[in-house]
Amino acid sequence: MKASIVGGTGYGSVELIRLINKHPYMELGTIVSNSQAGNSFSQTYPHLTGIIEQRMEDFDASNLSEKNDIVFLATPSGVSSNLIPKLLDNGIKCIDLSGDFRLRSTEEYELWYKHSPADESYLKQATYGLSEIYTEKIRSAKLIANPGCYPTASTLGLLPIVKTNLADNKSIIIDAKSGVSGAGRGLSLTSHYAEINENLKAYKLGAHQHIPEIEQVLQDETGTQITITFTTHLVPMTRGIMCTTYVNLKENISTEQAVQLYTQFYEKNPFVRIRKPGTIPATKEVLGSNYCDIGLHVDPRTNRLTIISVIDNLVKGAAGQAIQNANLMNGWDERAGLDDLPLYP
Amino acid sequence: MKASIVGGTGYGSVELIRLINKHPYMELGTIVSNSQAGNSFSQTYPHLTGIIEQRMEDFDASNLSEKNDIVFLATPSGVSSNLIPKLLDNGIKCIDLSGDFRLRSTEEYELWYKHSPADESYLKQATYGLSEIYTEKIRSAKLIANPGCYPTASTLGLLPIVKTNLADNKSIIIDAKSGVSGAGRGLSLTSHYAEINENLKAYKLGAHQHIPEIEQVLQDETGTQITITFTTHLVPMTRGIMCTTYVNLKENISTEQAVQLYTQFYEKNPFVRIRKPGTIPATKEVLGSNYCDIGLHVDPRTNRLTIISVIDNLVKGAAGQAIQNANLMNGWDERAGLDDLPLYP
Amino acid sequence: MKASIVGGTGYGSVELIRLINKHPYMELGTIVSNSQAGNSFSQTYPHLTGIIEQRMEDFDASNLSEKNDIVFLATPSGVSSNLIPKLLDNGIKCIDLSGDFRLRSTEEYELWYKHSPADESYLKQATYGLSEIYTEKIRSAKLIANPGCYPTASTLGLLPIVKTNLADNKSIIIDAKSGVSGAGRGLSLTSHYAEINENLKAYKLGAHQHIPEIEQVLQDETGTQITITFTTHLVPMTRGIMCTTYVNLKENISTEQAVQLYTQFYEKNPFVRIRKPGTIPATKEVLGSNYCDIGLHVDPRTNRLTIISVIDNLVKGAAGQAIQNANLMNGWDERAGLDDLPLYP
Amino acid sequence: MKASIVGGTGYGSVELIRLINKHPYMELGTIVSNSQAGNSFSQTYPHLTGIIEQRMEDFDASNLSEKNDIVFLATPSGVSSNLIPKLLDNGIKCIDLSGDFRLRSTEEYELWYKHSPADESYLKQATYGLSEIYTEKIRSAKLIANPGCYPTASTLGLLPIVKTNLADNKSIIIDAKSGVSGAGRGLSLTSHYAEINENLKAYKLGAHQHIPEIEQVLQDETGTQITITFTTHLVPMTRGIMCTTYVNLKENISTEQAVQLYTQFYEKNPFVRIRKPGTIPATKEVLGSNYCDIGLHVDPRTNRLTIISVIDNLVKGAAGQAIQNANLMNGWDERAGLDDLPLYP
Repeated sequence: MKASIVGGTGYGSVELIRLINKHPYMELGTIVSNSQAGNSFSQTYPHLTGIIEQRMEDFDASNLSEKNDIVFLATPSGVSSNLIPKLLDNGIKCIDLSGDFRLRSTEEYELWYKHSPADESYLKQATYGLSEIYTEKIRSAKLIANPGCYPTASTLGLLPIVKTNLADNKSIIIDAKSGVSGAGRGLSLTSHYAEINENLKAYKLGAHQHIPEIEQVLQDETGTQITITFTTHLVPMTRGIMCTTYVNLKENISTEQAVQLYTQFYEKNPFVRIRKPGTIPATKEVLGSNYCDIGLHVDPRTNRLTIISVIDNLVKGAAGQAIQNANLMNGWDERAGLDDLPLYP
Repeated sequence: MKASIVGGTGYGSVELIRLINKHPYMELGTIVSNSQAGNSFSQTYPHLTGIIEQRMEDFDASNLSEKNDIVFLATPSGVSSNLIPKLLDNGIKCIDLSGDFRLRSTEEYELWYKHSPADESYLKQATYGLSEIYTEKIRSAKLIANPGCYPTASTLGLLPIVKTNLADNKSIIIDAKSGVSGAGRGLSLTSHYAEINENLKAYKLGAHQHIPEIEQVLQDETGTQITITFTTHLVPMTRGIMCTTYVNLKENISTEQAVQLYTQFYEKNPFVRIRKPGTIPATKEVLGSNYCDIGLHVDPRTNRLTIISVIDNLVKGAAGQAIQNANLMNGWDERAGLDDLPLYP
Repeated sequence: MKASIVGGTGYGSVELIRLINKHPYMELGTIVSNSQAGNSFSQTYPHLTGIIEQRMEDFDASNLSEKNDIVFLATPSGVSSNLIPKLLDNGIKCIDLSGDFRLRSTEEYELWYKHSPADESYLKQATYGLSEIYTEKIRSAKLIANPGCYPTASTLGLLPIVKTNLADNKSIIIDAKSGVSGAGRGLSLTSHYAEINENLKAYKLGAHQHIPEIEQVLQDETGTQITITFTTHLVPMTRGIMCTTYVNLKENISTEQAVQLYTQFYEKNPFVRIRKPGTIPATKEVLGSNYCDIGLHVDPRTNRLTIISVIDNLVKGAAGQAIQNANLMNGWDERAGLDDLPLYP
Repeated sequence: MKASIVGGTGYGSVELIRLINKHPYMELGTIVSNSQAGNSFSQTYPHLTGIIEQRMEDFDASNLSEKNDIVFLATPSGVSSNLIPKLLDNGIKCIDLSGDFRLRSTEEYELWYKHSPADESYLKQATYGLSEIYTEKIRSAKLIANPGCYPTASTLGLLPIVKTNLADNKSIIIDAKSGVSGAGRGLSLTSHYAEINENLKAYKLGAHQHIPEIEQVLQDETGTQITITFTTHLVPMTRGIMCTTYVNLKENISTEQAVQLYTQFYEKNPFVRIRKPGTIPATKEVLGSNYCDIGLHVDPRTNRLTIISVIDNLVKGAAGQAIQNANLMNGWDERAGLDDLPLYP
């Protein structure tokens, strides 16, 4: 099966290529990059010298659909909303790594993204690709809105407790920290080495576009509207996201009970690992892998649950989850091509 | 005036030496290090070759008190509680950078520190050295318990809002992040480069010994017992602490009003800088300096205040605040020797 | 085929486990760690929670040899010289990642390593495992002395030019730079985060134990004794080695000619990639992979060749080359289990 | 005395401001930035909030000269060659941190810098500001060409040995490594965090514009033309330069003799520290300070001298040396404003 990548030179694309290259059932098809069409991929990424010498092409929906079996789009915000309708009309399945098809409400999209939303008729065809939660819908989907990196770590950490009705929904605070690769390959002072190295920054307080995405999942899964506090920080490292999430509990439970609850919730999900009481995951412990590791602590002094969830933002937070979704859509083992151990140290 | 340093080879000591070296009214006196007695300081720290060639000495309370005018103790937990009584009995003023004299309750000390507390008669003589808050008491103190790095950033961030009675005291959550130098120079797998670099770790959930210290200050300043949630994270950088603190507000106020409140609270304090609405400080913006910078954001959706406070853990979080306290104790301008701009980038 | 690992908790071991886990023909056998015997591997390395829960065992040569088909030893210097004789006597093949069997001269070993060499009768059975150069000997070897990380990058960079007789052998200078994981997991001030981060250090000038190893290879391959200058530096990053090597040329050749010479030399070696004129590899371009990338530049002003060779010190510089050698010893494709793309960024 | 800074928002400027702020005899005058004229300096650099709120201005040579006593230019390559003639004509002294006035030969400038050189009549008025070597000329200079960061570390390391005639001048190889702040604040993929972090890169092989600058100094000081090999590497850290320099010796001398020679050479220079035999400086040991530390090693096997020289690229490599030169030009102690200890760790 041929997998095409649209948006060829960003970090999402190069990570998709790394994963497709080791996938047992997919091989790399067309790479589309309008800005680099005609150049070989290894000119942009010399670490692929001698391996991915394939030339990039301009976007051509009918040609793409003919020569490939699935398309991954790793384009900047606001681009895939224009490309995906053409691809779907040509009958090819799409997995969109951008935020364009994640929010069902076009008003919310405009409010948080500050530009035009996708066409509503196509928006309706999108399935939110949080693999562990929407597994069945994903199997039959034609268009996947692959979740954001922060929403993946946040919602996998929150859902077991909010779905049991043990959580005080008004109390949810997510203190999120990310490595710098999450900001992409576009040049910016906020990715400039000397500004970021040996520095810790908070950014977009109360304004991050992943807030409505997290709230939409929480509402879908609980049936009630939940408003969260969500703060993002930039950590001087390349990869990794940690969400430290605080939830007031409506009943007294112990750390052990919380661990048991989470373990049962994810017992069929190979990529979610719940840590034993007293152990807390660090971001490096999932580096390069598709795992989401979760540690839990209930403070008996405040009856508040602290959830620590970590992912590699480019794998489970982007390309890895996209491959996981492709596996589900094709009826393969969801672990196909994703069984690497984390790279440590 | 001669300033002695006890606990000679840790990061607290070498930072004290850097600051005393540029102080207009103090000069370096005896350096005490039992493990390195007889060696020159520059053997341990070659960056001081040709500058601090002075030999370290064994601890001798009467000799120290004779040859010096003030003593800074930067010893590991549980050491200064044995040394300070001897020094005070010899009539010399002490500033203790360890946690030994910070908690008034010996029960709390044993509970959180897991070893024996200082003698209660000496404990009563200690003044908690949060310079901006206990200014007057510090001026006349003979023994300063210099605050911990996390408590400094946390309480400077919290006090303006909890003292106005605008805060829901049960809602306080401090998500704290620190650079690795805070763990000191002692060897440990949690300071081992390959384990920490490119990694973000949470640690000591619900168990950090700075929790009772923060709660003691909050109780002293509000008259009510306040229980906080406090989570610490290790960030791959050498210096810097950021506390991201969440407080539910009992009344609606805007970000602008919060900024005004904080600005007034600290209007006489040269080392606390309140950022304008919409701007948030990063840790590098105080590197090497004694500033505590604070940014504020009220989310109207939840009526929750987010406070971002940053310090250099070795300066305002340790040696710098110790010098600031020495300045107050001696009737000097509190900025003496501390007027450097942050090192940027 | 079962692969045992002796020296279970170091970085060499954990990297071997990562690679064996994805190997098509080998699976993990006994893990030996005297210090951690009885504990599960994931207690030491929580990133393997739920994956490598196997318990570590004490060293027992006959038991090991019975239950496994090959043994990888990733023990500290001076340990495997005692273990390997027992293993060989039990008839099992060994790949030693330490330096114990690399130098044929016991005098040289004692001079540079400062402790007792291996028994000479076993030393004679060892084949130096520089896979690209000693391919045929490795295929039939029973004991492989796996090369050091620096010697791998150095000799792969030097051999094409010294073997053509174009090099002035007296002029060879290797300026080597390594990430910190090369120093292992043992605690030391030279791996202490705050000492190493934001710092660049040279170390062991003229005294590094890899000097005689490089010189032995150069002598073996040229038939003449060559004395090199070799300087090592510690770079604030976890993985990666770069050797910048300088050689005076005896004849005028262009950069293009040098590139052609190297390309031909390695044309049958899938893991050595020669970069085109004008492009120079960086360490991140081989991260997590078994590649050795080489860039070349001839300065016509001095007729001096500069060779830049990069590897991942834990892969091609240790565990990856060990797997490559196991592949050769077993008649498998040398790429088996080693076909991952570099992790970028 | 008022010191103006032209080129206001780069790292050279902000470091000049840090140093002028603590200078006993200079205070900050006009800040010129054409791109940011009208904005306060702290808008660009929030770490100076409340301290440097001064507004930046457009360049106006006569106004500048009237209101200031000296001008520091920290502009990009090719800019100061147009501004300095106007300033000199207005009678104000200039210290240029760019490369525009460093090379006496306009042909060499065009060859290496690839754009038009400064006017030769002004070029002749420039004094090369390597403070330790050209001390007397600097005292009476009106225009200082402040040395490049690499040439400062390189030539201070080389001059003692090449001036004794002990060096084989054809054998000089400088393997130079720099932190990323040396590349400035302009956005570029080579300063993009995720590309540089955990990566070591060589760049501009045989083509760095500092090559002719180093060669010019060596020729001036030895009277013979010397051609060097000079390779630059980018190290994942913000500040610091290390030059590892290799020189074949024409006579046998020991490391001790080399140390003695260097110590005598620099005995009157407070900012050059020669390390004892067996100790080698690291870049962090000069962080934030104006020191150049030098370690030496003679390998008796090859009779080759290895020189390790380290500086902070933004201090001794730029702004600090500029202040040192201003001190000399004004008859002040050359240490004025530069007596800070390195920031460690």
